Amino acid sequence: MDKAVILLSGGLDSATTLAIARGGYDCYALSVDYGQRHHAELAAARQVAAALGVRDHRIVSLDLTQFGGSALTDTAIAVPTAASEGIPITYVPARNTIFLSLALAWAEVLESRDIFIGANAVDYSGYPDCRPEYLAAFERMANLALKSAVEGRAMRINAPLVALTKAEIIGRGAALGVDYALTVSCYQADADGRACGRCDSCRLRRQGFAAAGWKDPTRYQR
Amino acid sequence: MDKAVILLSGGLDSATTLAIARGGYDCYALSVDYGQRHHAELAAARQVAAALGVRDHRIVSLDLTQFGGSALTDTAIAVPTAASEGIPITYVPARNTIFLSLALAWAEVLESRDIFIGANAVDYSGYPDCRPEYLAAFERMANLALKSAVEGRAMRINAPLVALTKAEIIGRGAALGVDYALTVSCYQADADGRACGRCDSCRLRRQGFAAAGWKDPTRYQR
Repeated sequence: MDKAVILLSGGLDSATTLAIARGGYDCYALSVDYGQRHHAELAAARQVAAALGVRDHRIVSLDLTQFGGSALTDTAIAVPTAASEGIPITYVPARNTIFLSLALAWAEVLESRDIFIGANAVDYSGYPDCRPEYLAAFERMANLALKSAVEGRAMRINAPLVALTKAEIIGRGAALGVDYALTVSCYQADADGRACGRCDSCRLRRQGFAAAGWKDPTRYQR
Repeated sequence: MDKAVILLSGGLDSATTLAIARGGYDCYALSVDYGQRHHAELAAARQVAAALGVRDHRIVSLDLTQFGGSALTDTAIAVPTAASEGIPITYVPARNTIFLSLALAWAEVLESRDIFIGANAVDYSGYPDCRPEYLAAFERMANLALKSAVEGRAMRINAPLVALTKAEIIGRGAALGVDYALTVSCYQADADGRACGRCDSCRLRRQGFAAAGWKDPTRYQR
């Protein structure tokens, strides 16, 4: 089977994306320890990678708290628990661009032509780097950047969830055997991975399970 | 003055780029400790940043040796000392894309709209991520990725050297007061920053000084 690199945060969307990718690829999961407030997602990523059976799982260390600018990378900025207008402060500057760039490096060395990302532009926080037009522009850029692409092996950025609702994502993943109890979506999960139940990410996740008609397996702090 | 983020490797091109940028911007220099074989370039970057007077200089740690795939990130692959056909093995997968992505993050937090990179597509090793078409595609992608761009503050990727010969670059930098004795270009510089004189980067640099009619200030190992 061909190889694919899957960006795996440890959340619901990336776990589902991995489950989809493993239907057609040897999977290499890539996570980033970027100093995220919800560090527990990395333990979840390890469990998801093990449960779904990847060929390799790398956790790259890259301290984005040295730039800050987000509630996820600066502890002085609180995670909002009420809906707000516009792009919320949980946006991390250039995050998906950085993660996809790291995936490019690994994919090229693996001689893979496929990267998977769980980006979604339906039930999402409005981050610009989750939209299809961004992903298309990244792919185009990548195919001008990489030696392998210039030599004829084009790179594809696959975002199989981009146009699905959260309920559709959950239905898809459940059908593929994803154990969502392992995943951590909460922006301020505690060290044990228990969710706050109040942040944007918790809200989208909870609504998704409700809309899908599935019991929510999330462990909440209270 | 407006702020700019300048990618500073410690080599000749990035030092010249910083000298150009400081003519119009408050400069924030960004280097990456990626496990490069020529680690001495980082000490050079510190000296160049100090000599040219930047507002801040950050060195981000990101271990690209965990992916390898290049003579610069895998010590098992020798640095070529003879010219070769095609893109040489000193190409580092996705390097400029990773570096520019990190620059995006910092620039967005600084509320800067300008990133400078010393990419050159004339006297260069043929790396695809140094070409103008790549840089244009990166800029286009960035302006779909960033919250600040979506909200109206477009990001520019400035590559003032992209169409210059090495001799023109040296002439430009010398006129701006760059002390090239501080810079390290060699792919296998020793710990003291002394150059091998034989790799691709040394060859391009040496020919540049000769063509410019300048005394080569490079310290060689022998």
